[in-house]
Amino acid sequence: MALDLGAIVDALGGELHGERSLAIEGLAPLASAGAGQITFLSNAKLVAQLAPSQAACVIVAPALRDQAQARGACIVADDPYLYYARLTQLWKRTQMPARSAGVHPSAVVDPEAEVHPSAWIGPLCVVERGARIGADTVLTSRVTVGERCSIGERCTVQPGAVIGADGFGFAPNAGRWEKIEQLGAVRIGNDVDIGANTCIDRGALGDTVIEDGVKLDNLIQIAHNVRIGRHSAIAGSAAIAGSTTVGEHCTIGGAAKITGHATIVDHVHIGGGASVTGSIRKAGAYGGVYPLDEFGKWEKSAATLRQLPSLRERLRALERRLPARDE
Amino acid sequence: MALDLGAIVDALGGELHGERSLAIEGLAPLASAGAGQITFLSNAKLVAQLAPSQAACVIVAPALRDQAQARGACIVADDPYLYYARLTQLWKRTQMPARSAGVHPSAVVDPEAEVHPSAWIGPLCVVERGARIGADTVLTSRVTVGERCSIGERCTVQPGAVIGADGFGFAPNAGRWEKIEQLGAVRIGNDVDIGANTCIDRGALGDTVIEDGVKLDNLIQIAHNVRIGRHSAIAGSAAIAGSTTVGEHCTIGGAAKITGHATIVDHVHIGGGASVTGSIRKAGAYGGVYPLDEFGKWEKSAATLRQLPSLRERLRALERRLPARDE
Amino acid sequence: MALDLGAIVDALGGELHGERSLAIEGLAPLASAGAGQITFLSNAKLVAQLAPSQAACVIVAPALRDQAQARGACIVADDPYLYYARLTQLWKRTQMPARSAGVHPSAVVDPEAEVHPSAWIGPLCVVERGARIGADTVLTSRVTVGERCSIGERCTVQPGAVIGADGFGFAPNAGRWEKIEQLGAVRIGNDVDIGANTCIDRGALGDTVIEDGVKLDNLIQIAHNVRIGRHSAIAGSAAIAGSTTVGEHCTIGGAAKITGHATIVDHVHIGGGASVTGSIRKAGAYGGVYPLDEFGKWEKSAATLRQLPSLRERLRALERRLPARDE
Repeated sequence: MALDLGAIVDALGGELHGERSLAIEGLAPLASAGAGQITFLSNAKLVAQLAPSQAACVIVAPALRDQAQARGACIVADDPYLYYARLTQLWKRTQMPARSAGVHPSAVVDPEAEVHPSAWIGPLCVVERGARIGADTVLTSRVTVGERCSIGERCTVQPGAVIGADGFGFAPNAGRWEKIEQLGAVRIGNDVDIGANTCIDRGALGDTVIEDGVKLDNLIQIAHNVRIGRHSAIAGSAAIAGSTTVGEHCTIGGAAKITGHATIVDHVHIGGGASVTGSIRKAGAYGGVYPLDEFGKWEKSAATLRQLPSLRERLRALERRLPARDE
Repeated sequence: MALDLGAIVDALGGELHGERSLAIEGLAPLASAGAGQITFLSNAKLVAQLAPSQAACVIVAPALRDQAQARGACIVADDPYLYYARLTQLWKRTQMPARSAGVHPSAVVDPEAEVHPSAWIGPLCVVERGARIGADTVLTSRVTVGERCSIGERCTVQPGAVIGADGFGFAPNAGRWEKIEQLGAVRIGNDVDIGANTCIDRGALGDTVIEDGVKLDNLIQIAHNVRIGRHSAIAGSAAIAGSTTVGEHCTIGGAAKITGHATIVDHVHIGGGASVTGSIRKAGAYGGVYPLDEFGKWEKSAATLRQLPSLRERLRALERRLPARDE
Repeated sequence: MALDLGAIVDALGGELHGERSLAIEGLAPLASAGAGQITFLSNAKLVAQLAPSQAACVIVAPALRDQAQARGACIVADDPYLYYARLTQLWKRTQMPARSAGVHPSAVVDPEAEVHPSAWIGPLCVVERGARIGADTVLTSRVTVGERCSIGERCTVQPGAVIGADGFGFAPNAGRWEKIEQLGAVRIGNDVDIGANTCIDRGALGDTVIEDGVKLDNLIQIAHNVRIGRHSAIAGSAAIAGSTTVGEHCTIGGAAKITGHATIVDHVHIGGGASVTGSIRKAGAYGGVYPLDEFGKWEKSAATLRQLPSLRERLRALERRLPARDE
């Protein structure tokens, strides 16, 4: 039972130009979509791909209505990218096997954990004593949720994620490290997505907190007592050190790292790979990675970089010798 | 059976000012501790939080004895942070469920592995043939310990850690890679902590070695034939390439990376995010990350950085034109 | 049944100088190999270790034939490192327990997955509906292969790897993130090695593709719709963002990161820790990490770096004041 265009607009809205009965067999990118497939155009740079597209139907913005109709069937929507997102959801819901609810028999769920009946605890997950998993939340497979940690509703946790491992806390004692037992937990809100092999440590005394709507990609490290504000998104391999607070609606690029005990205000956007070494008190976009270069040139620039303070001194000396004139 | 202050000082020492019978229901940070909670003050910057604290008891250094007593109950200890660490241990030991010993039925332990009866192999762990797990060591859950790898006594391994995967060894052969079988193992000493999803590869010929008292945070990559010296600590998402030796009592910041075949001497401290591209022969603190900036400013600095060698040449040319005078 | 030198050259070729019947009990590095052990010399810098070596036999290049024979038994091979690689394979094949084929009883393999009978699905792996695992491929333990993902022949996947988690795709919608269901899969060719806790996300619409002969180390993030070309190798903790294409025969250093939607041509070599912020259209070696320095010096250089554009302006101003002479 493939979707047809009529069923799509009935479910998602939008203005259909074309036959309601046209059957859609799949979704594909604009450049490669063939007959039977639906696609979308949201990036202005790709407009040239519209006319030659072989797709059965293209989702476009109102400004491209005429151009799209000239080609064939189209759905006009205010935000084609958002429409595409919802179409993937519709596709998954109607065209792919439904997910289960309950607990897979291979999962190890403590009798004192509390799992909502509509949640799904997938194969080989571990849910420890006192953990709470909310309605419609999915632990895909091989996820650990540690004791007393809680996950809200409609969350998805990808394989291998570890929620509630001990934070990294040790007191120095005569050249050795004395363990600080991590007595807090992790509290995760609703509509949070957590990527594969991502780690969120439990708090030392208080809790580590991930607020509603946060999206975390794979292999991210969230240390103890971090708080991530609502609807912030963090890309893969990023790392956030202990007790740092990230505001709401922030985006943090892949492999970025943020030092501990920092405060990042709302609406901050950190470029991929950047190192944040302190608080950021002003919304905006920030970056800072060493510019890539041919290897030999990098070696030369990097060597010179170490001399930068002395080069500045030499420049000052020259300026003193040659005072500025009125020109 | 909550702890009271008398039981705390009986177990941990320290000079109690206040009622021995005062019951403690929990630990909390200085700023938020309420009645019934104990807290500590180890950071001089937080002294202003002492007087208004609502805590039942504050652990303080001798210098703050009078100030603390003026507020209410206190325990005076030479090192309040260390005292706090030990208090968390006491708390866990007496107030929280005891950990188990033995092997969880869902774990897969090879009959030829050797597990000390006091150790705990948690749910869904894999312990392969010839592996050895020492007394009082805990594999929390979903940990893999590969064949012939050994872990000493009183170690804790957090979920998802992989000890003894194959090192990354390949010989180039006419544009392809020929596998170098990794015939060594991993040897881990006593009192080592290993974080969630951290990987320690087995050696190619000899072993990868983690010495006594080393602390590894989450998502760390330790490549084959690395050696980490006693009581060194490595923060999350760091990566150490093959055959590198890290000395004793080193600290390596989060997301730092160290190249292969390097030697880092004892008492070296590497800042978070830094790239160590060769050996470090002198104890001390090292760093090096590109300074974060507003995105546009970063783009400008980064572009100029590539011209740094030529800027230096131009500066030299000017200096030749304008020789230094005696002033 | 230890190998003797005769059996080694019968299996691997090479020119033996010494007794065929000499028994070999193990492999070891040149510096530490003792009686009964075989070693190799492939690094010209280590020639001085040849004469004093106690090894039973040394594998050397033709140029070192005489020097090696003067010491004792040797095998002369055109490429001693490759010979050593193959010797490790021979050793593993003949001296160590054979690996199993089939499915470990603790693994969770969907009835609609297709696993070649010669493959091995190790303990606590998850293989989802519609996944395909080719001949002689090994999932060591605790590996997840998501639905409809395929792995070719003779691949090895180390513990904890996650193949086919959802890619990180969300459409912004009034300050929230709307999930883009990830409808593609992961396709992995033949002779691919995948390291511990590495993640390869499924494509959004099309597939994420890892071509034949690719080698991936531990803790690597490969985002959705990435393509890695044949015989490329990527070291630990690297991260590649979505829709990027890496060419054939590339090497990417540890902890390097590559931005999304970039194209890296064949035969590109990226240094460890570097940040690739766009496409690379020319084969060659590239790098770029901030040079490590003593902490205080780094702070000074980094502060000056932010002033670099203004320093350049000041330099220009001086040059205008002092025009170049013919010299």
